[in-house]
Formats: sequence, structure tokens, C-alpha cells
Amino acid sequence: MALTWTKLSYLRQLGHSKILTRCVSTQFTDIPQIDEEVAKLLALKAKIQDAQPQKFVLKVPKGTRDYNPKQMAIREKVFKTVIECFKRHGAETIDTPVFELKDTLTGKYGEDSKLIYDLKDQGGEILSLRYDLTVPFARYLAMGKISNIKRYHIAKVYRRDNPAMTRGRYREFYQCDFDIAGQYDPMIPDAECIKIVYEILDNLKLGEFVVKVNHRRILDGMFEACGVPDDKFRTICSSVDKLDKTLWEDVRCEMINEKGLDPDIADKIGTFVKLRGGNELVTQLCEDENLKKSKAAMEGLTDMKLLLHYCELFNVSDKVSFDLSLARGLDYYTGVIYEAVLKGAELIPTKDGEQVGVGSVAGGGRYDGLVGMFDPKGKKVPCVGVSIGVERVFSIMEAKAAQEKVRTTEIDILVASAQKNLLEERMKLCSELWDGNIKAEMSYKKNPKMLNQLQHAEDSGIPFVVIIGEQELKDGVVKIRNTLTREETMAPRENINEELKRILSAL
Amino acid sequence: MALTWTKLSYLRQLGHSKILTRCVSTQFTDIPQIDEEVAKLLALKAKIQDAQPQKFVLKVPKGTRDYNPKQMAIREKVFKTVIECFKRHGAETIDTPVFELKDTLTGKYGEDSKLIYDLKDQGGEILSLRYDLTVPFARYLAMGKISNIKRYHIAKVYRRDNPAMTRGRYREFYQCDFDIAGQYDPMIPDAECIKIVYEILDNLKLGEFVVKVNHRRILDGMFEACGVPDDKFRTICSSVDKLDKTLWEDVRCEMINEKGLDPDIADKIGTFVKLRGGNELVTQLCEDENLKKSKAAMEGLTDMKLLLHYCELFNVSDKVSFDLSLARGLDYYTGVIYEAVLKGAELIPTKDGEQVGVGSVAGGGRYDGLVGMFDPKGKKVPCVGVSIGVERVFSIMEAKAAQEKVRTTEIDILVASAQKNLLEERMKLCSELWDGNIKAEMSYKKNPKMLNQLQHAEDSGIPFVVIIGEQELKDGVVKIRNTLTREETMAPRENINEELKRILSAL
Repeated sequence: MALTWTKLSYLRQLGHSKILTRCVSTQFTDIPQIDEEVAKLLALKAKIQDAQPQKFVLKVPKGTRDYNPKQMAIREKVFKTVIECFKRHGAETIDTPVFELKDTLTGKYGEDSKLIYDLKDQGGEILSLRYDLTVPFARYLAMGKISNIKRYHIAKVYRRDNPAMTRGRYREFYQCDFDIAGQYDPMIPDAECIKIVYEILDNLKLGEFVVKVNHRRILDGMFEACGVPDDKFRTICSSVDKLDKTLWEDVRCEMINEKGLDPDIADKIGTFVKLRGGNELVTQLCEDENLKKSKAAMEGLTDMKLLLHYCELFNVSDKVSFDLSLARGLDYYTGVIYEAVLKGAELIPTKDGEQVGVGSVAGGGRYDGLVGMFDPKGKKVPCVGVSIGVERVFSIMEAKAAQEKVRTTEIDILVASAQKNLLEERMKLCSELWDGNIKAEMSYKKNPKMLNQLQHAEDSGIPFVVIIGEQELKDGVVKIRNTLTREETMAPRENINEELKRILSAL
Repeated sequence: MALTWTKLSYLRQLGHSKILTRCVSTQFTDIPQIDEEVAKLLALKAKIQDAQPQKFVLKVPKGTRDYNPKQMAIREKVFKTVIECFKRHGAETIDTPVFELKDTLTGKYGEDSKLIYDLKDQGGEILSLRYDLTVPFARYLAMGKISNIKRYHIAKVYRRDNPAMTRGRYREFYQCDFDIAGQYDPMIPDAECIKIVYEILDNLKLGEFVVKVNHRRILDGMFEACGVPDDKFRTICSSVDKLDKTLWEDVRCEMINEKGLDPDIADKIGTFVKLRGGNELVTQLCEDENLKKSKAAMEGLTDMKLLLHYCELFNVSDKVSFDLSLARGLDYYTGVIYEAVLKGAELIPTKDGEQVGVGSVAGGGRYDGLVGMFDPKGKKVPCVGVSIGVERVFSIMEAKAAQEKVRTTEIDILVASAQKNLLEERMKLCSELWDGNIKAEMSYKKNPKMLNQLQHAEDSGIPFVVIIGEQELKDGVVKIRNTLTREETMAPRENINEELKRILSAL
């Protein structure tokens, strides 16, 4: 954008001498801040133009959603399965703030950094919403000088991505991370991460799945063996990362046309990334004349061999696939990488009747350098971990539960009255039940109709109704009605808590 | 700020004709956007000046904190108590996004609005972090056209307040909200909210507490009776709200000097706000010659009488105090208001050796107008609720637990080996235990030392160690060691899961 004299005068008027110096010395070409400011002023102009009284918009921000009680019941069920598994493996849990200093996130996400949500500068620190739980975890370790921990962290993360909500892709979404930090013998924690993904997906009963594994060193070695120039490793790796959603032909085009790769080299990559298998593939690659020359490839293959062996000991080999097309985009991985995908059978219906696969439901890998980026002396803490993509799991479970009735409360007893003017008796009884740790509720109306009370018990799945009536009060008893069988029994009012606990424990 | 000709030229250059028109027509006085833009440019200038390479700061944002595993164990214990109570009363749960459209929060918090965190405008919607859970709840009800719900919501909220972390005041903090929405008979849900606060504080065992109650209509009636001008009700109410932290003399000064209240009127208020009590105070106020003339006061007192009666039925009267000094700052309350405070005895030590009380640990009230502010047709949904201030509870519990040992994992079994080269056997055994849903772990070292393994079990409070040795392998057995008693027994390797489950269930 050309700077006019008027704009220069204006800036000088405001005392922007440093900007002006840079403007002049760089011939006005590289001052993105100025363009940004101009964009802001133009936006301001548009805003003033639109300043007519506007209709209030009743909505949640783009790419986010509310969870209603039914969705929460599903969410809690999924979390329970996930947390039980993490705890079974001895993980502690931590929490970190939802925002971090912007500097903490800078330079960790490569091209994805543009998706980070920033907070407005309101005076004070410059903050951003967390983009994942891995970088805050590394910051936590460096800050606390922690060199050993096995922890899980379940929390929301934020990405200004293009939402695809029917497929479970949101701008605010949960991650369930399990990570092992510490200097240990090779591949033992790495294999446990696979075991964990296996257990969780198995327990969630989402259908068939496969856990793809690969290794950054094998990818590097493969690029080396194919003749990819060193400075193109990262960008070619990004192209390979698209193979889960894109045909090889299109990825090949991108490599050649956009990234300037020699077509022969691309074709060599093409033969590699079609390979998947188990031990036999490791053996085959170890014999490959070109790979043999690459130290990176050989080290990666040694790791992979051990990892696959440990997967056998952990009894998960049937669903583990060594897959050379697996790349994963994030910059910080240094060793083994994983991704779990549901097999084709698991499709969920979208609003427009289409069926789409949800793809990856877990991913992770080893990142031995990240903690060192935060440590003042660069001290490294090797880490490996997995993240369960629970939003996609929620989407599947919600679609499955669409027709089902899901209880959203745990109430065991509805305290009801058969006649008018018994509100106080209901309140006293309810209070006794609460004090005895019995889950109970009553209508908030003074004189609710009997039928409405019974109907509420049926609709909400409350198993028993305790009914107070004038005659019962005189006789010192209450009526207990089984909502399902409609069977009614009498019980003494005095020991009602014990009687109800007896009945409930027999359920 | 005066607009110079240069600035005008610059704006014209950019095509800000609408701004210019308004600038000219309003004589440059009321275009806050322009000042804002200038402030931005000046900030930009400062930024460029500071662009020297800076030292990386390893910290969390001001007013926030990480939770370590021990703190998380305490937090989970508190949440468990709170959630159990909410569920015992039949509440469902919902969740809403951490940010809302800025418009959703506008005009709901009075003077506190300045404490709202805004997100940066990165193109798209203008967003803010939620300030509480009540406004998002009202937005949720209006959006879903929900007229009846009893729900809880436990989530973090954000306030750019002055942090006082030793007292549990943070910029990011949890709220645990319970609310009842719906048109019901008077004071029944309102009394249940008090019952809930009572149960939770009782179960948390934080020591003596009192639940103060008052009523917005009684406050209004009191101001009316004292002769406060109508347009000063809100601001005088804000002054009264400070009485929990400030002496009456200082509040009186503020009323007279800052808010221009007649000293006689202030003194009349002074006699009222010293009053606290129960039923007898309601009766006394009902007889008050000045209050009698106020419709608001009489309506409020009728409510209060009923509320105190229901508190008796709910067996919570011993800790409920009708307190005319309770005001609560937020704009949206319309009826009963509550606040629970811990009595003086409960002090927590700060870093500098001082002891401070944590003050209010729960608060809430009735807000019958808030949902209507979101409904396109202004349809009202009466609501009442309470919010538990768990951060203050965490502070107390953490101070109490400072000396204690708190287990941060739930591991029951450590799988250990007595000799070298038994890694694979440990892995196989661990895998079997996990598959049998037993919480187990093992060292990630190939050849860990026996003593280190046993030490780890003791340090982490793992009750049993299962030891594999070469001889045991040959004999088809394992050794089970009780960490506490150091007693050792043998068990067949084959049925190890059943044997361990038997031992664990006997714990």
C-alpha cells in the first residue's frame, strides 16, 4: 500500500517518528502494523455507518455451542470412561489457566499460529487463549522444574478454525490429554500411550478402529532417501499430513506445483507413503538400500521395532498399524507419532442427510524438545503423550442417543401429596430425605395436582413416589409408589429414610 | 482531544466521510472511536520502540494459577461435595461457551462492566469472556425458550479485578451455580437455595457460618421510608453493599460527601442497616410507621416472613439471619438476596504471617427480569439461584492440607521385579491387570532397583506391590507385598486378577 503525504503528516503529528523512520528506510513496503491500523480505521468507518440501532442477536459465538442436560449426560459418561482409564494407569491431574501469555504460545504451532485467539490489550499483559494442552503442560513443567510426571488434563482449548460442527469440529472444544514426562528407557511410555488409546476406544464401544503409528525420524529418513532437499522437509511433511483427507494424486500435485519438488522425488515418496503393516514392514524397510544410508531412518526403525514388540506384550497389536503416510502437522514432535481413526463403518448423519466419517479420534506423539524451549537453561524433559478427541466421540454418541431417552437427573424419590394444603408436610419430609443423603425433589407449587406429580415421576424416570395424604398423616404412615410397576405399599412415616434406603439399595 | 487539520486530511484520505460528517456536526467532541484509534497508534509506537529482543518471561498471567496434583485432589473433593448436593436436589447440568458475544454481557453488571475481559477483534464477532454464569444461563433460557429448569453449572469465570490470591481472589476462578427457573409459588425455590448453601457448607466442614438474607424490595422500601430520592436508590444501595468490608462511619461519609445524600437521611439508613434477626425483626419492621407506607417494603416483608418460615421447615433456621445491611452489588437482583459468610474463627494464614478471613463463600438471589432482557418479546422467566465461591473454599482447604500427605493417584498395585531382564514379564502382567480394570503401574526403566520400586510404593501410598522374580516365574507364582505391613504372601500367577481383587476389596 502506498503511503500518501497526508498519511505521513498525520503519523508525524502523532509522533510516530520510529514508524516513519522505518517507512522511509524501507520504502514503505514492510510495515504491516500500518496496514493493520488502516484496516482498523476502515472497520471503524463501517461500524459507524452501521450504527443504526441494531436488533439484538441471540446466539452463541460462531463455532461454539451450549450443552443441554442430555448432551451433558453423554459428555459425563465419556469423561468417566476416559478418566477411569487415565487413573487406572496411575496418572495425576493438573489444571492450567485458559489463557497464557501470548509469548508462551508463540513459535510452537507453525502455520496454525494464525488460528490462536488473542485477548484484547486492556492494559497489562498480552494474552492468548490456549490452543492445546501440550504447550501449557511444557510451560508448567519448565516453570515448576518438574522432570518426572504422569498426568492427565481434561480442559477446553480454542482454535479460530473453520467450524464443521456436525463432524464435531468446533472453535471451543475439549481435549483429554495423557502425557508421561521423564527420562526413561526407550519406547516403554510410548507403548503405554497406545495401550491407553486402545483401552479408551474399546471401552467407548465406537466400533472398529486402528491406531496408526509412525516416527518423525523415519519420515525424515524417508525424505532424505528420496532426495528431498533439507529445507523442504517440513513443508513436504505438511503435504504428507493431508493424505488422510486427500488423494495421493492431489498431494503429489501440491508437492510439485506449489512446493517445487522434483516429480521423480515426489513419486519416490509416493511409493513409500502407500506402505503400511507391522513387523514385516519394519524388516523390509531395514533392508531398503536407500533408507539404509539414512541414520535418522535406521534410528526410527529401531524404535519402531521395539514399539511394535511392546504392543504385542500389551496385547494391542491387532489394532496397531505402522503407516508411512502418517505425518501430523505440529512442529514439536520429535519421535513416535500416533493417530487413531474409526473404520469406515462408523458414519454419522449430518443435517442435510449426508453421512460423514469423523476420522481421527485420538492423536499424539513424542516431543522431547518442547520443555527445553521454556527452560531458561534449555534443560530438556523428554515427553510423550496422547490426546483423545472427545468432541468427535460426543458427536457419534449424540447421534446414537438421538432416539433414546437419557436420564438427566439422579432423583430417586418424588415427594408428592394427594390433597391440598400439604406443602409444609412435603417440605419437612423432603428436608429429612436430603439430610439423610437421599436424592429427592418435590413440586414447587403449593397445591400441585396428583396426576401432574405422577406424570413428572414417569417423564423423569424417578423410580419411587412417596405420597403424603391427610389419612396417612393421621395414621403416621406414607404411601410408596413404584413408578414402573405402579405398585403401592405403606411404610411408617417415622423410619422413612431407612425404609427408602432399603428399597433403593434393592433396585 | 482537538482534531488538527492534518488529522482531518488523513481521515478524508482514507475515506472516513461518515466520521468526518459527525466530527464536524458535533464539533469534534463525541467521537470516542477516534480517540481509541489514536490510543492504538500510540500504543503501536511504544511497541515498535520496545522491539528490542526481550527476555522470555516464564509465568502464568496475573491473577491466575496452575493447579498441581495435590491442589487438584483438594479441588475434586470440594466439587464432589458440591455436585452431590446439587444432584441430591435434582439438578440437571448444562455448559455454555467460555466466551459470549460482547453484546450479551453489555448492561448487566453496572459499574463492574469495566472488569470484563474482551477478546481481540481478529475479524468476525466481537467477544468477551464470561463474567459469571448467571447471564449466560439467562441467555441460554431465552435462546432455547426454556421456561422451567433446575440446573447446576460449574465452570470458570473471568474478572479483571485486583487479585488477592491468598484470600482466594483470582482473575480466573470457578463458580458453582445452582438455579431454579420457572413460575412457582412464592419462596419455595428461594428457601431451597438456602437449604443447599447450608448443606454444602455443613458438609465441607469449614466451621461456623451464617447465611444472611435480605430482599431488594425491603431495601427499596427502606430507602423510600428514609427519604432517599428515587434516582439515588441504586448508588446508595452500592454504598450499603460495602458494609461487609467497611465501617458504617466510612459508608456514611461516602453517602453524604460523594453521593450528596442529606446527613439526616443517611443517619436514618444507619439505624436500619444495623438491624439483624429473625421472625421478630420482620414483625418489628411490619409495625414501623415509615416502612408501613411503602408498598415495596410491605411486599418484601411478606416474602421474608414466608421465607423464614420455610427455613424452619427445612431445618436451617439456626444459621439464617435476616440482615438489613446485606445489599449485593449486581444490577439484576429483584427479590430475595443471600450471602453466606464464615464466622471469625476461620482465618487462613497468608505468606507474610498475617491471618485474614475469607469472608463470603456463597451468594445469590432472585432475578426475575434477566431472562426477559434476552427474549425478543421480553417474555420473563422468574429465576432464583446461588453461587458457591469455591476458590475461597480451596484456599481454606489448601491451608489446612499444607502439612498433610494427600494421595494424588489411585494406584492399587505396583508391578515390580526383583531381578534384571524382567521388563517384558512386568509389561505382560501390568497389561493383564489393566485389562481386568485394576489400577496398576510399573517403572518405565528396563532394570529398576528393587529398593527404588518399594520406595516409590511407600512414597505414593500404593497399598500393594506384586513382585516378579526368576524363581517365582518358574514356580508359576508372584509375591504380593503389603506396603504398610511389609507382609509378603505368594499367589498363583494364573489367577492373579481374582486374587488381587479379593485382597483389594478387603481393604
